[in-house]
Amino acid sequence: MEEVIAAIVAKGNEVRELKAKKQDVKAQVAELIALKKQYKELTGNEYQPPAAAPAPKATKEEPKKEGKSKNQLKKEKKLAEKAAPKETKPKQKQAKPGKPSVTARPEGGSAMPSDSDLLLRQAKYAHFTAINGDANAQKVTPWDVEAEGGVDYDKLIVTFGTSQLTKDLVTRIEKLTGVRAHRYLRRGYFFSHRELNEILDHYEKGNKFYLYTGRGPSSGSLHMGHLIPFTFTAWLQKVFNVPLVIQLTDDEKYLFKEQTLEQSEHMAMENAKDIIACGFDMKKTFIFRNSDYIGTMYPEILKIQKCVTYNQVRGIFGFTGSDNIGKSAFPAIQAAPSFPQCFPIPFHNRTDMRCLIPCAIDQDPYFRMTRDVAPRIGYAKPALILSKFFPALEGATTKMSSSGPSPTIYVSDTAEEVADKVRRYAFSGGGESKADQEKYGANLDVDIPYQYLTFLVEDDVELVTLAKEYGEGRMMSGQVKERLITVMNAFNADFQKKRAAVTDEQVRQFMTVRPLEF
Amino acid sequence: MEEVIAAIVAKGNEVRELKAKKQDVKAQVAELIALKKQYKELTGNEYQPPAAAPAPKATKEEPKKEGKSKNQLKKEKKLAEKAAPKETKPKQKQAKPGKPSVTARPEGGSAMPSDSDLLLRQAKYAHFTAINGDANAQKVTPWDVEAEGGVDYDKLIVTFGTSQLTKDLVTRIEKLTGVRAHRYLRRGYFFSHRELNEILDHYEKGNKFYLYTGRGPSSGSLHMGHLIPFTFTAWLQKVFNVPLVIQLTDDEKYLFKEQTLEQSEHMAMENAKDIIACGFDMKKTFIFRNSDYIGTMYPEILKIQKCVTYNQVRGIFGFTGSDNIGKSAFPAIQAAPSFPQCFPIPFHNRTDMRCLIPCAIDQDPYFRMTRDVAPRIGYAKPALILSKFFPALEGATTKMSSSGPSPTIYVSDTAEEVADKVRRYAFSGGGESKADQEKYGANLDVDIPYQYLTFLVEDDVELVTLAKEYGEGRMMSGQVKERLITVMNAFNADFQKKRAAVTDEQVRQFMTVRPLEF
Repeated sequence: MEEVIAAIVAKGNEVRELKAKKQDVKAQVAELIALKKQYKELTGNEYQPPAAAPAPKATKEEPKKEGKSKNQLKKEKKLAEKAAPKETKPKQKQAKPGKPSVTARPEGGSAMPSDSDLLLRQAKYAHFTAINGDANAQKVTPWDVEAEGGVDYDKLIVTFGTSQLTKDLVTRIEKLTGVRAHRYLRRGYFFSHRELNEILDHYEKGNKFYLYTGRGPSSGSLHMGHLIPFTFTAWLQKVFNVPLVIQLTDDEKYLFKEQTLEQSEHMAMENAKDIIACGFDMKKTFIFRNSDYIGTMYPEILKIQKCVTYNQVRGIFGFTGSDNIGKSAFPAIQAAPSFPQCFPIPFHNRTDMRCLIPCAIDQDPYFRMTRDVAPRIGYAKPALILSKFFPALEGATTKMSSSGPSPTIYVSDTAEEVADKVRRYAFSGGGESKADQEKYGANLDVDIPYQYLTFLVEDDVELVTLAKEYGEGRMMSGQVKERLITVMNAFNADFQKKRAAVTDEQVRQFMTVRPLEF
Repeated sequence: MEEVIAAIVAKGNEVRELKAKKQDVKAQVAELIALKKQYKELTGNEYQPPAAAPAPKATKEEPKKEGKSKNQLKKEKKLAEKAAPKETKPKQKQAKPGKPSVTARPEGGSAMPSDSDLLLRQAKYAHFTAINGDANAQKVTPWDVEAEGGVDYDKLIVTFGTSQLTKDLVTRIEKLTGVRAHRYLRRGYFFSHRELNEILDHYEKGNKFYLYTGRGPSSGSLHMGHLIPFTFTAWLQKVFNVPLVIQLTDDEKYLFKEQTLEQSEHMAMENAKDIIACGFDMKKTFIFRNSDYIGTMYPEILKIQKCVTYNQVRGIFGFTGSDNIGKSAFPAIQAAPSFPQCFPIPFHNRTDMRCLIPCAIDQDPYFRMTRDVAPRIGYAKPALILSKFFPALEGATTKMSSSGPSPTIYVSDTAEEVADKVRRYAFSGGGESKADQEKYGANLDVDIPYQYLTFLVEDDVELVTLAKEYGEGRMMSGQVKERLITVMNAFNADFQKKRAAVTDEQVRQFMTVRPLEF
């Protein structure tokens, strides 16, 4: 029945899409009528379109910023932020009272649109909120993150249809594991999820789940932003004591970027060393490169491919007819490891294991698609725990990226390189002059050195103190930058030591298909 | 340079396509201008579109039959054929003098459109010659063959851009191998090719080539039509003494048809037994199921996928947005075995081996695409030797198919089943009454029992005698059918004996990745 409804919604969208392009829709309309007839035969009732999801409305209630051209905004942004640093401050706070909080929506309750609805709704508008002068506009795809006024994560929760990761859920994790929550959870860096509560129910009953995360090898060394999901995943593995699979998508990077297959394969192996240095348990972790492991996953990939139309991936990922055919088929390859059927040897043929995927929210479109397909091929949906982006050095309008033009801090950087990059490029929210800073204090929302420190400093007291001192103008921007350089270099030095200790033999072992211990 | 030209032609087609749909083409026109500029920079000359290929013109010179609706034609066809059986006879003859013969085109000469041009031309119109009352219209795709007045193979050579397999080439094969040509060559059943002459040059110089053919497992047993390419391939393997790879596309049949993956995989194994019974040399033959062997081919599949756009496969294969994403990526999987890089172990890492593909002409679109991609990834183009279709029992308007609604003669059929099917369904070109047959004789062009005998009878004298006696009315339709039943049952009995002797262990050996002997 769900399939018929999904088909009706899809066909309706197709008709509207074609109409919008002024193309002939006779055949599609006939199919739509046939589907509605099928619905009536199955239910005895006429098909009624689902009530409009409340999500977009909530977004509209947010105060709109004055509409300006992209260029205008770019020019004015820095000045505006310097001149009136406090203006954007309330944004960092939790949802305001009086404004309907998106987290108030019942978890998985009947009012929630289904994944299938969301998949289709998404196809229409969600991932490409056009950037045309609206300062709230943002573009978040697996390949691109752009948001003029900084990413609005509350809005992403609404448009993507995910749930907020509430304090209660964090507390529940602490109770179940007996371990204090990771700083990324305490500080809301992992801020959203899909069915995390179900994974916790499952775990509470004594059942195991497994973790699945991945990496697209487009650089020889990971950067600071890449480490976040891996260090967090290592923590999850440790506190829940669960197995983990890590997909290296060398095929994806070859298909989507200007790099050879050999380069992609090589970078995947280099990245594996960085990943291993994050502290995974070898007995419980299987790292695989798609070009090595595709054969085992192929039956599951085919099942997923058969359930997803080209129109759907075009809608979800924005592919065009000029894109190569590997791109349109790839989403099924990233989807497949969400199902334990892909890992008969690592998981001892146990197909009852639920999957939890820690990743940044730009990967959500893949798994929204996966969750839509899962029940149609008789599998459980993967759950997700979603992070914000690690902001770029020059500011939070985009994520740190190793493929963009802007400077990136790699974990392989020397102390001098880190110091130079932070001093020269890290966007400051501090006053323009010493006097300004003393008078107005710093805007921590846009201050990159402060934000990086929130990722790296474990001590909550230090962080609160620094926020107060810097925010209220008693600390200078340069001092904060120096503090970041010290912390970051200590982190890098430690990481580089661990990385240097990873042997080729260890990489081989992590990447050998073998039964995991759990 | 070829790439720039191909890009210009492609972009031009894209613009025309969009214009036809009344869509905005500004961006595409800009790209087109940029490409033409690039051409000028490289050559110093303005870009000139290639001279219109002469092929379509030649087709138009053929006398057009009176336009009629599809239904009208269907009703009138049988009557017309019976009433005036001689009328269509000249069609069987070789190209008439006075009519420009398509075989007169120079082999690979400069006037020939490149594969790339053909690929793009094809994308526009060739594969869907609309069936709208034009008796010459025909639809030939890898999934469908439909031609109201019987398939016009001369026209296919023109629209597909292949070369005619001339008597001279057949004689050359005989000289090189020292063996009399196979009856399928003598009788023009293998009627067309791409660069077969180059393969023969290569062979003449003492170099090896390899054969590649395949099977899409959509039925548990092969039918008579399936055996043709396999028995011919076994002959080629023997007389040239070359290795062979056979692809079983269980993935394709799962993606394109209503059958489960398990069914596809199972039918592939059953089909392997039928194929082995055709008499392949185990030491020189590697049979593989895509679901087993995909991992080894994956790097080559990715390289091909990266070179082919969705627009191209949509144009070549007629995919729509509602088709699943596996379909659009599949052509790369059928293309890959054209390159020896897919078989490092079977071919001892020799990447200098040319590939010759024996197949029915409906598979040509796959390899036209493959040949377009080959030079872009630094590989040699595969050569092709192309057969006509084994006609369906009810007449030559379509090919025999195990998935259509019409009766099919399987190699597993009992003698009674064969007799019953031939007597009841085989379309006869004989007179309606004994008197008619004696007066007008039979129309051998449409007579299915006679045509089947041309496939099965080795003795040229018997066949010529039968054609004369039956064609001139001294033999009755029933007698020819009985002769076919005898011949077919002898063939089937022999085949079934060989098939029964194929052990699971033999299948396992044929399907084991191992070095082939050559």
